[in-house]
Amino acid sequence: MTGKAYNVNPSSDVLALAKALIERPSLTPDDGGCMDLIEPRLVAAGMAMESLDFGDVRNLLAVHGAGPPHVMLLGHTDVVPPGPLEEWTSPPFEPSVRDGMLYGRGAADMKGSVAALVVAVQRFLAERADHAGTLSLLLTSDEEGPAEHGVRAVVPVLKKRRLLPDACLVGEPSSRERLGDVMRIGRRGSIQARLIIRGVQGHTAYAHPADNPVHRAGPLLAELGQLCYEDGDDDFPPTKLQISNLRAGTGAENVTPGQLEIRFNIRNNPHSPADVLKDRVEAIIEAHDPGPWCLDWRVSGEPFGPARGALPMAVVEACREVLGHSPEADTGGGTSDGRFLGPAGVSVVELGPVNRTIHQVDECVSVADLKRLPAVYQAVMNRLLAD
Amino acid sequence: MTGKAYNVNPSSDVLALAKALIERPSLTPDDGGCMDLIEPRLVAAGMAMESLDFGDVRNLLAVHGAGPPHVMLLGHTDVVPPGPLEEWTSPPFEPSVRDGMLYGRGAADMKGSVAALVVAVQRFLAERADHAGTLSLLLTSDEEGPAEHGVRAVVPVLKKRRLLPDACLVGEPSSRERLGDVMRIGRRGSIQARLIIRGVQGHTAYAHPADNPVHRAGPLLAELGQLCYEDGDDDFPPTKLQISNLRAGTGAENVTPGQLEIRFNIRNNPHSPADVLKDRVEAIIEAHDPGPWCLDWRVSGEPFGPARGALPMAVVEACREVLGHSPEADTGGGTSDGRFLGPAGVSVVELGPVNRTIHQVDECVSVADLKRLPAVYQAVMNRLLAD
Repeated sequence: MTGKAYNVNPSSDVLALAKALIERPSLTPDDGGCMDLIEPRLVAAGMAMESLDFGDVRNLLAVHGAGPPHVMLLGHTDVVPPGPLEEWTSPPFEPSVRDGMLYGRGAADMKGSVAALVVAVQRFLAERADHAGTLSLLLTSDEEGPAEHGVRAVVPVLKKRRLLPDACLVGEPSSRERLGDVMRIGRRGSIQARLIIRGVQGHTAYAHPADNPVHRAGPLLAELGQLCYEDGDDDFPPTKLQISNLRAGTGAENVTPGQLEIRFNIRNNPHSPADVLKDRVEAIIEAHDPGPWCLDWRVSGEPFGPARGALPMAVVEACREVLGHSPEADTGGGTSDGRFLGPAGVSVVELGPVNRTIHQVDECVSVADLKRLPAVYQAVMNRLLAD
Repeated sequence: MTGKAYNVNPSSDVLALAKALIERPSLTPDDGGCMDLIEPRLVAAGMAMESLDFGDVRNLLAVHGAGPPHVMLLGHTDVVPPGPLEEWTSPPFEPSVRDGMLYGRGAADMKGSVAALVVAVQRFLAERADHAGTLSLLLTSDEEGPAEHGVRAVVPVLKKRRLLPDACLVGEPSSRERLGDVMRIGRRGSIQARLIIRGVQGHTAYAHPADNPVHRAGPLLAELGQLCYEDGDDDFPPTKLQISNLRAGTGAENVTPGQLEIRFNIRNNPHSPADVLKDRVEAIIEAHDPGPWCLDWRVSGEPFGPARGALPMAVVEACREVLGHSPEADTGGGTSDGRFLGPAGVSVVELGPVNRTIHQVDECVSVADLKRLPAVYQAVMNRLLAD
């Protein structure tokens, strides 16, 4: 195997598939017919198909082979809304190639890489139908939305049927400047919290300062804003708390607020699980005794990683072979569906196109990158499922 | 003079006038025809009339006599909006007497006391046309609104014409439980401030805490909320700061705020003038170095009082004589048009009906109180302008 062998791309198949997917406006959690387009290709490749739909969310599982190791490829067909249509140079759901870039909502996040994953699987199975272990491809239409009925709901089914993979390669756009410069080997967790401090509304001329929840909560707010956990390591940045929203007052100038709402987001690394952090935050609140309070605490993703086992090295080697350079391992950024697999013990690595334009107007992906991506994914499969 | 003499009320004149005023929906700053109703009575009483209108605000000045001492009576004809009409037991602009109470918007604040002031002037001049000094009555239609074109605008005219009074009796509803239990002998000032702390909006997963204006401003907010000035005395409560509104964040959970808006109201006593407080607050902000900030500072009223000279004692004696008890001297509560006269060196006392229902649905005044009020005001004039 040489890099050259993988760079050869006799058809523009991946570009055609990416365009066809962009043409289907699959606003989260709507699949928009994307999976119907993909399914026949995987069937023809010899995979066993299964729908694992929940509510109005489509989840498609394709499996080939049996036994360990089980390597899963993971992607989503849904996209975020396009935003103001008039700001797009070309319509978001009409794929358009200009100056070597493919434009359209989902081009980079992640219809481009879904197309690359599918084409990679087709090629891999065409060449190695007798591969070792199990290859699966899981697609969902609920990654960008509430993500309740997508991979979160599928994982318990996989567990029950002993189909939880050993390793999972997610096609999320991980690259910063050029294809394959960054791979994600884990993610911090994300906790959304809403703290309400109650007081007594009053006229500013009469109110006792002790009834003003903003006054009572001032020192607490100061401490929350300066909260710092020294739990960073080589793989993960430290756990951080960011206050996202503050609301108090009716808008009137002469009325003291009846309550203060503090919303914050914590990105926690694996050394600080959500339940430990909740105890710590509650202790801080109690120590400040700000009056009656209540705390809503919602864990939108547990931290996971760093990825262990053969997958991260296979991804590094595949990049080096096909692209000529090694990706940097990173755990920054937001979260992905890997959050539902990582905490279950799956080794998760994310590798995909440059993410500079995702969720923005004129989202795009490099056509050259798109054409090289199947070869990268295929090289990973070759390494992990060699016969 | 005995209490009995003043309690005799041969006509229901004050009630009729109060009702006629309530019938005119004079939503601030609209006079609604109230002054047209009053003017002929004052002319008939022998007063010299002058309109001092500014913009769409009516100001009516009636003067009788000349030279010192100059006693002014002050009132406003405008009212605050009625709020939800369906919550009123009877329509707000249709005066209605039930169980000894007169209901209607402005009944207590302050069409009832305007009627009482007018009737008191009529009776006083009928009995003592040759009184000492100067008696004036000033009415405005802009007390409840922005108060830019009402007494604030009239005072410089009075100053210029050497018509600034020595003493001013304001008919604002000062009473707490029963008529004449409280008189106001001054007011704290009121300052509206808006502090903006700027930061850099970002994604909660990436943002540096130093860019989050809420984090940077936390300790400042804590100090502002605990600010306490030890400047209270026998007459005035200490200066107090109340944070009325906090706003930060877009509402989105994953976006850090680009700025923090802190709005606060300071009620300052005469020992802490607004300009001194501004310097102090700015020094506190600078000491915390919360990043780029700007402060809007609007003085809506300077503190004034405590009232000196003969007026406060005359009011105490008039209450004792007519009502049988002495009012407590107080400087609490909101502000009134006295704020434009007090700081100019005028001795200002406010005395009027029970304020329990002002600015509320089903605003009302006791008919018995209304009928006794002209006698109280007349007794004050008798004392100050005895020939």
